[in-house]
Amino acid sequence: MNEKIAALEKFLKLRNWKGGLITSRQNIFYLTGFDYEPHERFVGIFVFPGRSPLIVLPEMELKMLLEAGWRYEYICYKDSDNVWRMITEHLKENISMITEFAVEETFISLKYVRMLQQILPNIQLQNLDEALSEMRIRKSPEEIKKLRIAAQYADNAIQTGIDALYEGVSELEVLGEIEYKLKKAGLRDMSFSTMVLFGSNSSNPHGVPGENKLQPGDTVIFDLGVKYQGYCSDITRTFVFKELRDEVKEIYDLVLKANMAALQECKAGNKMRKIDEAARKVISDGGFAEYFPHRIGHGLGIEVHEEPSLHAENEDFLREGMVLTVEPGIYIPGVGGVRIEDDVVIGEEGIEILTKFQKSMQIVKSKFVLKE
Amino acid sequence: MNEKIAALEKFLKLRNWKGGLITSRQNIFYLTGFDYEPHERFVGIFVFPGRSPLIVLPEMELKMLLEAGWRYEYICYKDSDNVWRMITEHLKENISMITEFAVEETFISLKYVRMLQQILPNIQLQNLDEALSEMRIRKSPEEIKKLRIAAQYADNAIQTGIDALYEGVSELEVLGEIEYKLKKAGLRDMSFSTMVLFGSNSSNPHGVPGENKLQPGDTVIFDLGVKYQGYCSDITRTFVFKELRDEVKEIYDLVLKANMAALQECKAGNKMRKIDEAARKVISDGGFAEYFPHRIGHGLGIEVHEEPSLHAENEDFLREGMVLTVEPGIYIPGVGGVRIEDDVVIGEEGIEILTKFQKSMQIVKSKFVLKE
Repeated sequence: MNEKIAALEKFLKLRNWKGGLITSRQNIFYLTGFDYEPHERFVGIFVFPGRSPLIVLPEMELKMLLEAGWRYEYICYKDSDNVWRMITEHLKENISMITEFAVEETFISLKYVRMLQQILPNIQLQNLDEALSEMRIRKSPEEIKKLRIAAQYADNAIQTGIDALYEGVSELEVLGEIEYKLKKAGLRDMSFSTMVLFGSNSSNPHGVPGENKLQPGDTVIFDLGVKYQGYCSDITRTFVFKELRDEVKEIYDLVLKANMAALQECKAGNKMRKIDEAARKVISDGGFAEYFPHRIGHGLGIEVHEEPSLHAENEDFLREGMVLTVEPGIYIPGVGGVRIEDDVVIGEEGIEILTKFQKSMQIVKSKFVLKE
Repeated sequence: MNEKIAALEKFLKLRNWKGGLITSRQNIFYLTGFDYEPHERFVGIFVFPGRSPLIVLPEMELKMLLEAGWRYEYICYKDSDNVWRMITEHLKENISMITEFAVEETFISLKYVRMLQQILPNIQLQNLDEALSEMRIRKSPEEIKKLRIAAQYADNAIQTGIDALYEGVSELEVLGEIEYKLKKAGLRDMSFSTMVLFGSNSSNPHGVPGENKLQPGDTVIFDLGVKYQGYCSDITRTFVFKELRDEVKEIYDLVLKANMAALQECKAGNKMRKIDEAARKVISDGGFAEYFPHRIGHGLGIEVHEEPSLHAENEDFLREGMVLTVEPGIYIPGVGGVRIEDDVVIGEEGIEILTKFQKSMQIVKSKFVLKE
């Protein structure tokens, strides 16, 4: 039996919940290794303690499911089929007594809840989020291996980005170079929409790359990540093109100091809010509190943002095996933005920083990188 | 007042529903022009007939919201804020009497439903899906203009793909070339994960591009689209590399005939199922019924798959302004796959085919394209 599904069944059994349904792409991938963009088509795994799990999926995807190793029951449907009727008929004799039934509250849509309530009219809906989050929040050595490789590719992509910089190049041209090289290296998917932001556009923490042309004096933010075997990286580095202005140097130094201070707080047993606090204190002491508008970081794994959320009010404790981003930033309209982001594994005795691209301030002069 | 939000308020008022909440990225973009990847962060628009709409969003995104033209109330929150408490406090005096309240059943998660039920304990949840789908299903001339341009870029991308073919090139290398050229042209986002599939990998309708190397005799499927100002294209073309096998010629001819037969049924007033039937008849008559495992097409707009779903059982009627894909395919394990997909606007008197790349069979010989 698939170990992860077995663990989920055990969780259900302990609570005396009679069944569960998993509908999110990320948790289906976590549980089965089967990954697929369903668009609006329904995909779900029904789990019942004591009997075989059942997956429901479009017929076209069956081959990929079996290749991913699924050895249990399945229902395949065509686009013209009534899939919920098929599910009802399949489960008929087994579901009449079900009352407590668990779903992913964060991911399941009200539409599918209503469908479920039609076929299981007596159910009390329970929440599977905690169980799945608890399973996923600490990464196994195999998962960390994938995250490590994903981070190596992200490191390389930063170098590609630097090499593509010259006066007058557009953000999208540099972005295109980065993704092209990754594809040539065999990586199909980025973990999120790559950001390459120049000058004033970099002062927007969620700026959108466009036709801005690189000019001397601009800050250059690269925020990117790849998916490697389903696992994400997420790195940010900031550079200065040709000319370093004093105010940029000031914020760069502060952000780097904040990044290092935050990393110091990354240790098993520490409260999560300490990481945010350490970075925020550095930036506040420097007089830029209002220019650091986001949390210090987030969990990283199958999703580029996942549990835990590393914000100032999080009283939970860091645990071994967690993989987190640490990404302080300062964004000053008219001046530019600086963000430095690492991916970090919380170990038993210390941390492993997966993103290794150097963080000391670099002034990029076309193809040459000169250290300050 | 924003016309689309006004139309939504009118819809609520007609049904005597006291309020509504829109939480999906696509409908928020449709209503406001504000587009943003929220990841796990909450973004929502509360609409109440007779008073100003209210948008809730992360503080960092306020600038982009205002640039998109939002002129109504908003609540901005930080990562460490309790956003649902802020919403309750903001709405307090206005929500005590609310009973009928509408949400997007297809998109809202059970988690947000539970949050809503906490702040509005007496509500009966109604469904906004139909109203929003009805607004979006017929495209305005401005929307069709964007879809037309998106399709032009998709046409160009097919040519880029052909130009990148040579013996031994990998699927991902060709994919990288296509996306690189689009980025250089200023297009940031594909409308879905680009597919470039060679030979036996093309016989999987949802195959995943990888390290397969192109060999003479391979079928080559390109299935791709771009987002232009928020609107998607979605084209598929199939080519043959160097050598044409008889069985490939046979299925190509059938798929092209099916595509043309389906396009013949694309007219206002016709039943949707007629489109699927026409294509399926051609393919069945040719003896390949079981190798056409998906519906004939889907709506296209802000989402690459949206309403309507063009499957064999759909008894709804085609209407002027709908934009659809028409994409028959035959996939034979061991032989290869052929799919030919167009984007089509249903007009008052006929159709406009947005994807114009030629469909007659082409045998590609490296950089040269020779017609059969």
